[in-house]
Amino acid sequence: MTYQPGTTGVVVQNIQRADQETVDGLADCGVATVHEAQGRKGLLADYMRPVYPGARIAGSAVTILAPPCDNWMIHVAIEQLQPGDVMLLGTITPSNAGYFGDLLATSAKARGCRGLVIDAGVRDVHDLTEMAFPVWSRAVHAQGTVKESLGSVNVPVVCAEALVNPGDVVVADDDGVCIVRRDEAAEVLEKARAREANEGAKRARFEAGEFGLDIYNMRERLAEKGLKYV
Amino acid sequence: MTYQPGTTGVVVQNIQRADQETVDGLADCGVATVHEAQGRKGLLADYMRPVYPGARIAGSAVTILAPPCDNWMIHVAIEQLQPGDVMLLGTITPSNAGYFGDLLATSAKARGCRGLVIDAGVRDVHDLTEMAFPVWSRAVHAQGTVKESLGSVNVPVVCAEALVNPGDVVVADDDGVCIVRRDEAAEVLEKARAREANEGAKRARFEAGEFGLDIYNMRERLAEKGLKYV
Amino acid sequence: MTYQPGTTGVVVQNIQRADQETVDGLADCGVATVHEAQGRKGLLADYMRPVYPGARIAGSAVTILAPPCDNWMIHVAIEQLQPGDVMLLGTITPSNAGYFGDLLATSAKARGCRGLVIDAGVRDVHDLTEMAFPVWSRAVHAQGTVKESLGSVNVPVVCAEALVNPGDVVVADDDGVCIVRRDEAAEVLEKARAREANEGAKRARFEAGEFGLDIYNMRERLAEKGLKYV
Amino acid sequence: MTYQPGTTGVVVQNIQRADQETVDGLADCGVATVHEAQGRKGLLADYMRPVYPGARIAGSAVTILAPPCDNWMIHVAIEQLQPGDVMLLGTITPSNAGYFGDLLATSAKARGCRGLVIDAGVRDVHDLTEMAFPVWSRAVHAQGTVKESLGSVNVPVVCAEALVNPGDVVVADDDGVCIVRRDEAAEVLEKARAREANEGAKRARFEAGEFGLDIYNMRERLAEKGLKYV
Amino acid sequence: MTYQPGTTGVVVQNIQRADQETVDGLADCGVATVHEAQGRKGLLADYMRPVYPGARIAGSAVTILAPPCDNWMIHVAIEQLQPGDVMLLGTITPSNAGYFGDLLATSAKARGCRGLVIDAGVRDVHDLTEMAFPVWSRAVHAQGTVKESLGSVNVPVVCAEALVNPGDVVVADDDGVCIVRRDEAAEVLEKARAREANEGAKRARFEAGEFGLDIYNMRERLAEKGLKYV
Amino acid sequence: MTYQPGTTGVVVQNIQRADQETVDGLADCGVATVHEAQGRKGLLADYMRPVYPGARIAGSAVTILAPPCDNWMIHVAIEQLQPGDVMLLGTITPSNAGYFGDLLATSAKARGCRGLVIDAGVRDVHDLTEMAFPVWSRAVHAQGTVKESLGSVNVPVVCAEALVNPGDVVVADDDGVCIVRRDEAAEVLEKARAREANEGAKRARFEAGEFGLDIYNMRERLAEKGLKYV
Repeated sequence: MTYQPGTTGVVVQNIQRADQETVDGLADCGVATVHEAQGRKGLLADYMRPVYPGARIAGSAVTILAPPCDNWMIHVAIEQLQPGDVMLLGTITPSNAGYFGDLLATSAKARGCRGLVIDAGVRDVHDLTEMAFPVWSRAVHAQGTVKESLGSVNVPVVCAEALVNPGDVVVADDDGVCIVRRDEAAEVLEKARAREANEGAKRARFEAGEFGLDIYNMRERLAEKGLKYV
Repeated sequence: MTYQPGTTGVVVQNIQRADQETVDGLADCGVATVHEAQGRKGLLADYMRPVYPGARIAGSAVTILAPPCDNWMIHVAIEQLQPGDVMLLGTITPSNAGYFGDLLATSAKARGCRGLVIDAGVRDVHDLTEMAFPVWSRAVHAQGTVKESLGSVNVPVVCAEALVNPGDVVVADDDGVCIVRRDEAAEVLEKARAREANEGAKRARFEAGEFGLDIYNMRERLAEKGLKYV
Repeated sequence: MTYQPGTTGVVVQNIQRADQETVDGLADCGVATVHEAQGRKGLLADYMRPVYPGARIAGSAVTILAPPCDNWMIHVAIEQLQPGDVMLLGTITPSNAGYFGDLLATSAKARGCRGLVIDAGVRDVHDLTEMAFPVWSRAVHAQGTVKESLGSVNVPVVCAEALVNPGDVVVADDDGVCIVRRDEAAEVLEKARAREANEGAKRARFEAGEFGLDIYNMRERLAEKGLKYV
Repeated sequence: MTYQPGTTGVVVQNIQRADQETVDGLADCGVATVHEAQGRKGLLADYMRPVYPGARIAGSAVTILAPPCDNWMIHVAIEQLQPGDVMLLGTITPSNAGYFGDLLATSAKARGCRGLVIDAGVRDVHDLTEMAFPVWSRAVHAQGTVKESLGSVNVPVVCAEALVNPGDVVVADDDGVCIVRRDEAAEVLEKARAREANEGAKRARFEAGEFGLDIYNMRERLAEKGLKYV
Repeated sequence: MTYQPGTTGVVVQNIQRADQETVDGLADCGVATVHEAQGRKGLLADYMRPVYPGARIAGSAVTILAPPCDNWMIHVAIEQLQPGDVMLLGTITPSNAGYFGDLLATSAKARGCRGLVIDAGVRDVHDLTEMAFPVWSRAVHAQGTVKESLGSVNVPVVCAEALVNPGDVVVADDDGVCIVRRDEAAEVLEKARAREANEGAKRARFEAGEFGLDIYNMRERLAEKGLKYV
Repeated sequence: MTYQPGTTGVVVQNIQRADQETVDGLADCGVATVHEAQGRKGLLADYMRPVYPGARIAGSAVTILAPPCDNWMIHVAIEQLQPGDVMLLGTITPSNAGYFGDLLATSAKARGCRGLVIDAGVRDVHDLTEMAFPVWSRAVHAQGTVKESLGSVNVPVVCAEALVNPGDVVVADDDGVCIVRRDEAAEVLEKARAREANEGAKRARFEAGEFGLDIYNMRERLAEKGLKYV
């Protein structure tokens, strides 16, 4: 059965995940390459920033729909985690409160979780950095949350202006976050690797001082468009 | 005598400060814990960010009310500093100009000041980082300021959406800034330490793989609220 | 001939650059000092932030006017670069897309380019950090761009709320970005160095515990303005 | 067949629409009541504002996925309109450009379209006001768009932080925009009307000077929570 | 007894109000004049906008401290209203949810309340306009709120970056909102009226074509500052 | 002589203006049409909004460069106004203070000034509306300004992200503000009128129910791009 985005009060326990090797391959390629390889879709909004630089991960999305200022569903979601998963949280109504800190990170890490993508705030970021538990968030804020209202786990959620289905692949690094549909992951990885191979060759030519104008044969088309050198 | 927030032209010389040991204890606990321990009040807005990561301080607030684009009152405030103090600046009207840089930091540091919380901009952030003089600000901006108009020192100020009284305890770390009332500091520290002790025990259980659902006995209440596992 | 800001379809090949020694001197002085030395003008908006901390550069501006979501003109600009130049890009209409990444950085670096100032987004920031190719931008975003429409190279551009002429000196560090007019560069450097010399002496007095109130003889003027100590 | 949000290059011609009487009933109830009646879901972000005050509409969504700064798909969508429809546009990447003006409004109105909800900019707002063609948008901006790239019509789109399916009911008034799922429209209308009936009775009591504290029996629960009158 | 800003769980029943004639006089003068007359203090942040144009009010503040997304305290506050009061609401943590709509407005109006100033969202703005119940808010949003947690009524609150005490005079018109301290209201009114009288005379001179340069004797001072006519 | 943007302390008294008939023709065409007619350049940022709806003006720009929170230069500028002019103000550093109100509007109106475009705040907007003196601004704010520092009049200024030269034509209506270079004004007017004539014919066809797809012959090109109807 498929749930609509916005459905509350449901925990979907059996979700399909992408092949782990494919997921790991996508992590190696990184956000920019994966985004290009899948036709420039799937990016989250650019306000989503890592709480510390240098992390590069991918994992299957365990999605969380959370009420405003209420982090109860994160506890529910942690029980659903499998090693290699990434938690991804969208809120019912916007909130910058600090939904997540070092205790939840300890719990998630013990479950093999690779990181968190959260369209809200986080806290204890110094501890998260020391634990090397990466988080991409819209805010850092210590503001506490309550445990009063239900949301859902593993239903589709809108997160940072993108729709994410449970089991989709979350790729995240210093450039932000990109989502790959589970059923497209293998194909996207193939294209991403082809792109990387192609870029390697070009990088060498750029390093040698060649111009993109020549490498990509742009001069003629620029002239046709009317570019004038004066 | 008590001054209203917004009073200009006054320097209050004798303010009461919190007990230094208490202040230092609050620094150890950090912003998130202190914020929770005092009932989730006292946080500054989440646009207040450290200019470099890793600092964790607390100190008694020497408050500064400053006109827009005018940093004259910081010079006045520095004379009022005692070792262990933190300067906290709110503006009469919003400004992102660079009120504070390496020379003022040198002067403040020579007075034993532990850092600055400023609802405006700062500059020379590379030098501040090298000096290890921590600043939490709403902006980094080199825009110069003038020395033309009076504000006040050690009157109550609104800073980043919170009211701060002179002598209140300022706690600041990578999560942001939290204010503790001077007359509540000892009690808040006690609660914060209790909270830390409690968290230590829980952290061990989380590391061992237990769920928050069990540690906090959440399952029954979730079921009562109607959460369905499918 | 002089082009108006906003002129598209033109590449100006021969621009005048500032004296390289002057440029390097301005880099040493840094943004805040240079900004003050030239009468507090020339700062870019404070949303322009470095993608990694610690870089401090100056160079002659090769300016780029780019259509929204279209980075074609960067390829055109790279051919116009000389060692010591800095690329500076303004857009025709605002865009946060990722105009620039590691391949373009490789190409620019091979030409001796010292960095990029871009009123738009960049990507591959982890690679840029490793390459030590500094960028100041309004956003980090992996969103891809096209190569469809003409802009211009080396015409005046509005970038982050400031007008920049080709050949102007771009000074950038952790405090942001400041523009110095080419014909004023030598004079500004002289003033900046004088300022630095002056600051060195003051820093020593501040370190020794003297007050700005005394160093700058502020007490009398504060009293005249009506400041009251209570 | 179901398309994923983000699918480009597709026009779905036969979509199911909600019953027109139900749609009209929802318009009468208005955004706030409908939002409450369906359990507080379906609201678009609060940056979506009407270009003129006073309009109150509902209609079946003809959805448009548009590339940045490219309004070509609106022309495609207009052919798919039936009387009573509302066009709803989300962009692939954020844009404030002016996608829509008086000519397109004339064309849409000739097709019986009731209005436009657009997560981008519009122009000719004076004409739109005179024509009484209501638009809810994130910006008013005259910036022109191109007709170069494909998007889609009648696939699911993310618009102002919400997912909208073609044929869903769009309700819009001075309070903003709310989406009702097509298969829930009848039930939501019933609840909304019940709510209105209930509110009518309460309004009379409020007008007569009764307190919500008494009408809703809040006093005891407030006392239990610890509220103190001093 | 005086309560600190941020105190929750308290309703102060007997507050002192300013003299009604003084309050009405301040309404006549309007926000800009009152703000100037009291030395340019007391303005709320400029994101506070009226939901419809044309209202001009003043009243004694019944202050409300509200939890995020929770409007319970408004019901509590309405019982404390006296004819001529204005409700003013600040939140414990920022929220754009729709705390207030037509039913609460009906109840407040029945109590003689003149309007609402709310650092959060409102809804039913079409009804509020028809009822002529003026509201100044940071957002218009239909998002529903709950009635779960205590705040306070008639304690000092920070609202839109200003501290407001219960019984202070709230002046609001199309320019925004300005707060006058109760104990300064009479003096401020006197100064505001003097200012108005003075402005009336000047308006006539401006209408007759005289320059501010002459009316205010600015020419000499401009020349001293170095202004050059070329 | 030509002044650089940012030059302070100068009043240029003799500026060239565009032909008045041309200016009036541009006002009739409006912002969106003029913007398109001149190749989609010259628009100010979309945060510039009219303080009341319905005004449509054009005039020759008397430009003002103003220090932050200092409106002295407006008095200086008013003396330079000729009937038909529009004042346009950019600030040295961003400010939302209220630089302009009813007295200055009275003075400007007495000089035949048609309106104000200001990248800062204004106040007395109710009076401005009653006087029918149109203003486009980034903010409405009563915050007072000082008269302490020099800026310039009739030098080039950056205003809302665009460069404006004195004597350029300012066109403004409910869609925002567009600048036309003085030396291009006649040609732009011609193109704008051609565009309007062309649009009139198209409007009739749209009203009759024809599709843009047919009017603009888009079907073939859409098919070539790969658009699929399903």
